Amino acid sequence: MTTTYDLVVLGGGPGGFDAAVEAAASGLKTALVEAADLGGSCLNHGCIPTKLWLGATSAIEELAAQSKARVASGQVAVDFAALQAKKDRHLAATRKAMGVRLGQLGVDLFAGRGRVADKTSIEVKLADGTQSLGFRTLLVATGSRPAAFPGLSPDGARVVDSTGFLALSAMPQSLIVVGGGFIGLEMAQAAHRMGAKITIVDALPRLAGLEDPEVSKALETVFKRQGWDIRLGVKVASVLTQGENAVLTLAAENGGEELVAECALVAIGRRPNSADMGLESLGVELSGPGYIKTNEFLEAAPGVYAVGDVNGRMLLAHAASHQAHYVVERLLDKAKEAYDSGPVPSILYGSPEVLRVGLMAEEAKAGGEAVLVSRAQLIANPIAQAHAATQGFVKCVWRQGRVAGITAVGADVSRMAVAATMMVKAGWTREDAAGFMFPHPTLDESLKAALLADKEAA
Amino acid sequence: MTTTYDLVVLGGGPGGFDAAVEAAASGLKTALVEAADLGGSCLNHGCIPTKLWLGATSAIEELAAQSKARVASGQVAVDFAALQAKKDRHLAATRKAMGVRLGQLGVDLFAGRGRVADKTSIEVKLADGTQSLGFRTLLVATGSRPAAFPGLSPDGARVVDSTGFLALSAMPQSLIVVGGGFIGLEMAQAAHRMGAKITIVDALPRLAGLEDPEVSKALETVFKRQGWDIRLGVKVASVLTQGENAVLTLAAENGGEELVAECALVAIGRRPNSADMGLESLGVELSGPGYIKTNEFLEAAPGVYAVGDVNGRMLLAHAASHQAHYVVERLLDKAKEAYDSGPVPSILYGSPEVLRVGLMAEEAKAGGEAVLVSRAQLIANPIAQAHAATQGFVKCVWRQGRVAGITAVGADVSRMAVAATMMVKAGWTREDAAGFMFPHPTLDESLKAALLADKEAA
Repeated sequence: MTTTYDLVVLGGGPGGFDAAVEAAASGLKTALVEAADLGGSCLNHGCIPTKLWLGATSAIEELAAQSKARVASGQVAVDFAALQAKKDRHLAATRKAMGVRLGQLGVDLFAGRGRVADKTSIEVKLADGTQSLGFRTLLVATGSRPAAFPGLSPDGARVVDSTGFLALSAMPQSLIVVGGGFIGLEMAQAAHRMGAKITIVDALPRLAGLEDPEVSKALETVFKRQGWDIRLGVKVASVLTQGENAVLTLAAENGGEELVAECALVAIGRRPNSADMGLESLGVELSGPGYIKTNEFLEAAPGVYAVGDVNGRMLLAHAASHQAHYVVERLLDKAKEAYDSGPVPSILYGSPEVLRVGLMAEEAKAGGEAVLVSRAQLIANPIAQAHAATQGFVKCVWRQGRVAGITAVGADVSRMAVAATMMVKAGWTREDAAGFMFPHPTLDESLKAALLADKEAA
Repeated sequence: MTTTYDLVVLGGGPGGFDAAVEAAASGLKTALVEAADLGGSCLNHGCIPTKLWLGATSAIEELAAQSKARVASGQVAVDFAALQAKKDRHLAATRKAMGVRLGQLGVDLFAGRGRVADKTSIEVKLADGTQSLGFRTLLVATGSRPAAFPGLSPDGARVVDSTGFLALSAMPQSLIVVGGGFIGLEMAQAAHRMGAKITIVDALPRLAGLEDPEVSKALETVFKRQGWDIRLGVKVASVLTQGENAVLTLAAENGGEELVAECALVAIGRRPNSADMGLESLGVELSGPGYIKTNEFLEAAPGVYAVGDVNGRMLLAHAASHQAHYVVERLLDKAKEAYDSGPVPSILYGSPEVLRVGLMAEEAKAGGEAVLVSRAQLIANPIAQAHAATQGFVKCVWRQGRVAGITAVGADVSRMAVAATMMVKAGWTREDAAGFMFPHPTLDESLKAALLADKEAA
């Protein structure tokens, strides 16, 4: 017998899990299908374990800054095996809590791969057979996986992707990171703190190539000062395990040099998980590397929604959760308007950190309007001074007298993310900033300083 | 010859300095009179040096948390002499930058004490004579100083106030803090990190007696776990230097016990600096321990404003700056309405930290309306987990479906201050929180969790 659900969710990552929880809490009969672990990439192989590494090593970074300022001395060592064990316990406990929550709300959880059977049902391949689930609405939230290309693939030995890197049992003494985006840079920072010699290789001419060029420059300055070997604008011919090492060979046009390290991390983007589910039979269309096309209501086909990485709109956990909330509101007839993400905050964690929300100057200028920018340097901020981490800045982008984007780079700038998102969402004017009571002393006063600073043409 | 200024400001702390800068930048002819150091108590003897101490010692705290979680080991030592030298250099550089800024804007700075001469002029006692300054508007921003009572006074040796404590040349091995408010607790935390054995004595029955009782309880739990000797609800008969020690004697009714430490810090509040300036001759009235009475426009008398600690509204640097901005807007005819502070954020720094903005539950209930509260524990937050600092919570106070106050206690909760202030100011509903995209993972998600949690009667 096939049970018919109001909502069947494929994928238990941030988007799928949040949708299932909210739908069930709102009275919808809900099933969640997950072939691997609850929590998806974010919890199990992405944001969360990386933040556990960065949190566990933050004393090393704080000490380094104060040592450089000649105020503190000492040494801090992280027990990597203990850290990995703590991480695994934390992830298991979180997955368990998620399962309990689903149970409390009456969500039926199916551990297996789902595949479309017909227009109103899917089949889930369980360990002990097959289960058919009828649906009124299907939500695809199957996420993404690390990208790999010929010559640039994890080989399971010394060349790993982000999932393999987070699962290492020992931190290598030397690490080559292929890809200077946020994922590669966060993992490189954690490895650096734990003593690894870092080499970064990227085909783009700058680190964090999607960010404001001033941010890229600030990052490069800090990381070079830490002794990183940074190779930009170069192509990789291959990266392979050779004996006990990973060996990266640059393309012939870039000299063909061989770089050797104990480990190589390939972090060159992610690819959507949209294949082998029979979605095409529902009329779902894919684009690019397999992103599910969605309309303005996040619908991929009649009765089929797609949220999160798999729709390619924004590969961020909080974007997935936000979309999931919208879809449930749609099902409850509460959301009539087209989906509006509002400004989406994006964060690089570590030291320095990067925060971006809303438009960057170049994006705003592409709209053809007059764009102004204003800036404040962190060196003038007493909290940055107190942490002896004064490299960095906050930059505001203005359109028609309202702030349309905020970008920051420097230690701890992630802490301004929610406030900056609220300001961009509300379109603050300079007067709004002048009339608001910013607590003193806070790092956020650098946000105030940037908002109140003289503006110049972008 | 007497020059007449549009605005004469008495006091170069956060309120006075900001007023002078904004007035001058807006074209008003402005003079600033400061008898001591630019920056006032906040910069020279208060918030800023304390934050420099807390920042310099943060690696110790991070290491302690990770050590307890058995993830890291090591030792960090702070060179107190180097820290004090860095602090002094930082304060001097900041004062210099403030002076330069005043000069650039054409503010005339007079280093001396000002005293009212008549209805339109003051006299400043300079090192080399007396200067008369005419004013159209007088702004009194003379701040406050540490309170002292008979038997509870700094004696210049082993018993000090906050100013004396921040000026110490060596950190004592043991410290008695009289007063469990924010000032005493911040300084005790810095001293604890640098190795001092801490004893706290307060006449109130709980730490941070102005905060939510749940906050007091959380603080006491953490500090007791750190080995602090906390004596609450007890009166002090005397605290005196005896030889190389400070000796505190409890009141007879509390057993008369003697507590001995290398140093005692008296942090029992602050008193306004409103005497000996001839303000009475302008019609200015004082209340309580000498706070300048102000009307709804922050006027103390016709043509006379008072901002900051000295008016007793809120003894916080950012409140002073916010009031200063309003006064300048008044002078420019831009502010017609009565002064509205909006929700005022208040922060205890350290580990744990406390954040409070808007109403606490008891305050809201005193208004007679139905009050609900909702809560989230930090232990469920991945960033708190990553820093192994999971003690604490966020608590929201609701009135008529809108958030009227937010209180938080725990590591790093200060970073949510601006966002929380914006939410309370806007009177967010639960739906506002549900529809907002909180970045993941952030500590701020505990704010989201509290806003979305089930509500109960306060």
